[in-house]
Amino acid sequence: MAVKELYIDFATHPDCYKHWKLRIQGRIATLAMDVREDAPLVPGYELKLNSYDLGVDIELYDAVQRLRFEHPEVAAVVITSAKPRVFCAGANIRMLAQSSHAHKVNFCKFTNETRNSIEDASTHSGQTYLCAINGTASGGGYELALACAHIMLVDDGSSAVSLPELPLLAVLPGTGGLTRLVDKRRVRHDHADVLCTTSEGLRGQRAVDWKLVDELVPRSRFDAVVQERATAFAARSDRPGNATGIALSPLLRTVEADQLRYTHLTVTLDRDLATASFLIQGPRDMPPQTPAAIQAAGASFWPLALARELDDAIVHLRLNEGAIGTWVWRSAGDHALVEAADTALAQHADNWLVREITLFLKRTLQRLDVSSRSLITLVEPGSCFTGTLLEFVLAADRSYMLDGTWAESPLPPAILRLSPLNFGPLPMAHTLTRLQRQFLAAPEHVKRLHERIGHDLNAAEAEALGLVTFIPDDIDWHDEVRLALEERASFSPDALTGMESSLRFAGPETLESKIFGRLSAWQNWIFQRPNAVGAEGALTLYGTGKKSLVDKRRV
Amino acid sequence: MAVKELYIDFATHPDCYKHWKLRIQGRIATLAMDVREDAPLVPGYELKLNSYDLGVDIELYDAVQRLRFEHPEVAAVVITSAKPRVFCAGANIRMLAQSSHAHKVNFCKFTNETRNSIEDASTHSGQTYLCAINGTASGGGYELALACAHIMLVDDGSSAVSLPELPLLAVLPGTGGLTRLVDKRRVRHDHADVLCTTSEGLRGQRAVDWKLVDELVPRSRFDAVVQERATAFAARSDRPGNATGIALSPLLRTVEADQLRYTHLTVTLDRDLATASFLIQGPRDMPPQTPAAIQAAGASFWPLALARELDDAIVHLRLNEGAIGTWVWRSAGDHALVEAADTALAQHADNWLVREITLFLKRTLQRLDVSSRSLITLVEPGSCFTGTLLEFVLAADRSYMLDGTWAESPLPPAILRLSPLNFGPLPMAHTLTRLQRQFLAAPEHVKRLHERIGHDLNAAEAEALGLVTFIPDDIDWHDEVRLALEERASFSPDALTGMESSLRFAGPETLESKIFGRLSAWQNWIFQRPNAVGAEGALTLYGTGKKSLVDKRRV
Repeated sequence: MAVKELYIDFATHPDCYKHWKLRIQGRIATLAMDVREDAPLVPGYELKLNSYDLGVDIELYDAVQRLRFEHPEVAAVVITSAKPRVFCAGANIRMLAQSSHAHKVNFCKFTNETRNSIEDASTHSGQTYLCAINGTASGGGYELALACAHIMLVDDGSSAVSLPELPLLAVLPGTGGLTRLVDKRRVRHDHADVLCTTSEGLRGQRAVDWKLVDELVPRSRFDAVVQERATAFAARSDRPGNATGIALSPLLRTVEADQLRYTHLTVTLDRDLATASFLIQGPRDMPPQTPAAIQAAGASFWPLALARELDDAIVHLRLNEGAIGTWVWRSAGDHALVEAADTALAQHADNWLVREITLFLKRTLQRLDVSSRSLITLVEPGSCFTGTLLEFVLAADRSYMLDGTWAESPLPPAILRLSPLNFGPLPMAHTLTRLQRQFLAAPEHVKRLHERIGHDLNAAEAEALGLVTFIPDDIDWHDEVRLALEERASFSPDALTGMESSLRFAGPETLESKIFGRLSAWQNWIFQRPNAVGAEGALTLYGTGKKSLVDKRRV
Repeated sequence: MAVKELYIDFATHPDCYKHWKLRIQGRIATLAMDVREDAPLVPGYELKLNSYDLGVDIELYDAVQRLRFEHPEVAAVVITSAKPRVFCAGANIRMLAQSSHAHKVNFCKFTNETRNSIEDASTHSGQTYLCAINGTASGGGYELALACAHIMLVDDGSSAVSLPELPLLAVLPGTGGLTRLVDKRRVRHDHADVLCTTSEGLRGQRAVDWKLVDELVPRSRFDAVVQERATAFAARSDRPGNATGIALSPLLRTVEADQLRYTHLTVTLDRDLATASFLIQGPRDMPPQTPAAIQAAGASFWPLALARELDDAIVHLRLNEGAIGTWVWRSAGDHALVEAADTALAQHADNWLVREITLFLKRTLQRLDVSSRSLITLVEPGSCFTGTLLEFVLAADRSYMLDGTWAESPLPPAILRLSPLNFGPLPMAHTLTRLQRQFLAAPEHVKRLHERIGHDLNAAEAEALGLVTFIPDDIDWHDEVRLALEERASFSPDALTGMESSLRFAGPETLESKIFGRLSAWQNWIFQRPNAVGAEGALTLYGTGKKSLVDKRRV
């Protein structure tokens, strides 16, 4: 198995899409998959039959993001195929077979997040995704459909939905399919069992009876019915038909060997310590306070600009800097300006653009929660961990806050400040806010914290209120922090990933937390098993005509 | 790494215990761990410092079971150590290092189930477990404490609780510790992070402040306080002080190469098809209908006898027959007699013994749900899938029911019959009944089924009501069933395990379902990673003085 180390860039634009055709007609957008066989992300495989790799999904993610911000008028999105008789064959098998374990896992995580963002748009943005399956949808192709709110399957006697991963490749459907079948669509587990063990899949009336799709549509009426359904979903949307979108202009980013610089974020790598230091810069000026002013600021409005930069940095480091195991979070700036930005978001939560910005902050923080990196936040003098930024303290596996000042520094002691954004709009994937997760044992404490919104909380208060883990003074700070980072770097990254995944999601479970916590863990396990990826494993041998050897022992 | 294939017997008795001392004084039992260094289950390691292997846990499981059935008067159980200054060092590391992947996973599953049965006793049997940590509790030692309802730690300036698996061995605490910390005891995730990365653990006031233990007790008053707490918990119990227990007499079991025979259960192996056929025999006579008569029948009361046989067969096949990937369930007998047994259980649910029997049936079915084997149930003429036995139809990954009769057979067509036991007393680990899980999409359907209790449901009705997956007639039956079994045997067992784990637990999550679904999956993954089990992995090299090589790449 060849292990490829890729350098992957996530920046793209509809004008550059190779694999998708985006068409917007009034309230309805159509995203047609038309994968270019000869344009894989890395050499070594052909993207036949609308099969996809990370490159295809990066474009899909970009399209989903732009539809939200650039097209307020779009209230329904139809995902379909531009190819005849095939909808999508799922993740490209040769790509999987030649990828490293880490790349497979990262690929699945990113594609999962994109599908979650599709569901987030349907649920929270008034932009409902429908799937028009106009040919066979296999594996990841059907999983993409499962992420949509309504699934239409062409009734042509041959087009089917299938999850053939287990019988053909000895792996699981890697993009949430199993969980969405039984938890989202509430397909009976025995029916799901039959589907997942039948490589050719199911079609026709049984697919409807078993709730695998929502309706069958004859080919002759397919386009008309798709249009009809999309129009009906669009009619229920609260998105404004007459608003103007904002352009998601290209990010200004400088990538150097050990530094990544954006406008509001600098990430500095320490390769010896296996650490990336994220320095978040607070707003430099008073953020706009009205929807019109926010709209005018567009992509330069600080919360949106920061979310985009964080999003890009997180996926960049995940994919391209695997040996950097710890992400350290710092901030610098003026609490009052961060607070003002939060106030604008809280006060105008009903405005379509403000809603999108807050949802994007939410999703970005959720990306952090499921990143397989240790998160350590350092609260130092000069920082501005207020409201939205305070979430980076709460999201951390542990946090340190300096008690007092640096010797010989004029900076006043660090403080924390709560804002309304800490109490609802930015929940984790399992529905709890990070404060609720922090105080699972004492829900009433969260109410008491609500009364402290806007107050300056120094280190002693922050510790007493349970907002930070440790509060060393300047005598102990450097040794204590360095020791923690060195120690972290010495641990097995695999065990850290398993531990952090287990500790971060106390409390209830949702579709998303199940997909990342349960399904992904099983998939990771299977992605290492000889039956799948060994020299004679099913994934390795697929398409060669050779039969894989199965070790029948159950574990 | 040596791969040991063991033949493990789960039958034991307090008179034969090597590792535990069981003492009963009135309402309080004490289970003192006193592991014999020189008595490991297989050669190759010494059980120093009260470290344990599966043999130690088989005795613990036996003790927990017997306390419930043989000692109705016991209302509180104290787990402690009989060794000075050490409570329990956790799972033996040398044992783990020399075990196969499958054995490690099986070992963790069984120890997890034993700890769950401890919690089940505290919650449902009025037999509350307390942990008296009278020395250091490391790893699995502390996890055993976490399974108890109240944890006392001796305050002697040195005894600590710790989970050193990650820093020392590059694996996770494998027996639910992470989940119990944050979900059961609701320890803050950042505090849990500190504990799990501090190999020496925590003690003293911080252990209490962080809720790692419930109280610190000076050594001078330790025994007295333990007694006091146990007495207080016992006082709240509803277990009868004056009832007589029933003896769990040795199981009558014949083990042959391809057959396992009990009184009410025969398991026949087909090694070519990688299949075990479980044939459950219904009651031969009318089961007793009063508590007194049930008490008099004791271990021969059909539901209890069957539960014990199933329990033994399941753990036997899991541990000793790993290459048998599919378990096929059949039954034979009289519906009316099964129904009568269920009626007795339902009518006398408040009786301490009936409660224990029903709880045991529940736990046995839950063991089935988390077994990494495909479950296929065949409902044929002559079967008696009523009530409790109908759960074996619902628990299956899929089921087949013969529509009509066998050609040239006098047996009437198969039927199914619902009983009150299908509607609450035998829930899955995530709190739903199997019927609720089956009809997650239509909760009102479960109410309609409740009205059908006691009715004979033929194949067509059972299918229409959604109780079975397929209803072939006798012309198709043999081909269809054989094809399904052959197909199952051809699939990767690893992918099947991941798929079944994902499909079986739709709906809510609990501590137990999180432990089996999320934590175990991560642990399985880590148990394969070179950082833990490779030639230079931490688990392999532990105790050799050599330093393990860590591949720092995050996955």
